[in-house]
Amino acid sequence: RILRFLHHFVRELPEPAMMERGVGELGVGTYGELATTTYDMPLIDALALFLRHRVSALPVVDADRRVLDVYAKFDVINLAAEKTYSNLDVTIFEALQHRTGKQDKVHTCLATDSLRHVLETIVRAEVHRLVIVDTENRIEGILSLSDMFNHMVLKPVENDV
Amino acid sequence: RILRFLHHFVRELPEPAMMERGVGELGVGTYGELATTTYDMPLIDALALFLRHRVSALPVVDADRRVLDVYAKFDVINLAAEKTYSNLDVTIFEALQHRTGKQDKVHTCLATDSLRHVLETIVRAEVHRLVIVDTENRIEGILSLSDMFNHMVLKPVENDV
Ligand SMILES: Nc1ncnc2c1ncn2[C@@H]1O[C@H](COP(=O)(O)O)[C@@H](O)[C@H]1O
Ligand SMILES: Nc1ncnc2c1ncn2[C@@H]1O[C@H](COP(=O)(O)O)[C@@H](O)[C@H]1O
Repeated sequence: RILRFLHHFVRELPEPAMMERGVGELGVGTYGELATTTYDMPLIDALALFLRHRVSALPVVDADRRVLDVYAKFDVINLAAEKTYSNLDVTIFEALQHRTGKQDKVHTCLATDSLRHVLETIVRAEVHRLVIVDTENRIEGILSLSDMFNHMVLKPVENDV
Repeated sequence: RILRFLHHFVRELPEPAMMERGVGELGVGTYGELATTTYDMPLIDALALFLRHRVSALPVVDADRRVLDVYAKFDVINLAAEKTYSNLDVTIFEALQHRTGKQDKVHTCLATDSLRHVLETIVRAEVHRLVIVDTENRIEGILSLSDMFNHMVLKPVENDV
């Protein structure tokens, strides 16, 4: 049954109009209720946020909600591997100094960016998520690979059921 | 309250004995009931598996359950970006030919590998998951970043509640 809906979906997908619409307008991503952290938050409070909200990453914002970085579960695991994990009183800023591997800038997009543009950014950057910001770099939402997948594969199926 | 348990956990964590135990013995990861695909599976059937099992990746195995590759949600999104998505009758083998970006070999570990070893492999390879194999490269399980995070952060908390 799922297969039948997927087949139906296939005929719908290469609809160029949808690909050119803004992700905000399409409702792809999470807007409004966001779990975020700050540079001066103790790591232990950030871990509590991961546990409470069951998210895979926390955008790091300043007092004006401007996006500075992203602190992800991967960074927690990374810190554990660095054996500096035992001190959970370190701040997120300090914890981020231990980050090894690619020191990417934070990848963002605008809610008005087209689904096509966002898709290409995620693939090119090889990241799990983009932070959605306004033109002043203030946080508006999060758009993860799973949101994209759900919109492109799962949602067309569910709409049909 | 969560914070109290986290603080408790902190005193427990740098327990070197746990880090040296095998991930299979510790039960970190998913064993037994796995969603897998094959090179000759049509993409549409693989999408149905993603929907049915709500997993983020499918190991690609041969007739002897030997691990050949991993087909992830990221690859589906990647394929959509390549605009070759409209044909869902392609096989997983063909779909994998369109993969851009790092063409990594599949990252695996043994169930007897220590938690420390697995942790370091995930961090070094910057991957979301490892496929757990036996010494003949036959699939035994999957160990994802979220399994690792749950074992190191969530589980100690829950045990305490
Ligand atoms: N920090 C966050 N705050 C609120 N929602 C989030 C956050 N991170 C991810 N999400 C949402 O949670 C869902 C799962 O995300 P992920 O685990 O990152 O794939 C998606 O719908 C995301 O948009
Ligand atoms: N193909 C799969 N088959 C069975 N379990 C899986 C598979 N991929 C991931 N898992 C498990 O599903 C949970 C979420 O994984 P992930 O979404 O990859 O972080 C973890 O407990 C994984 O061990």
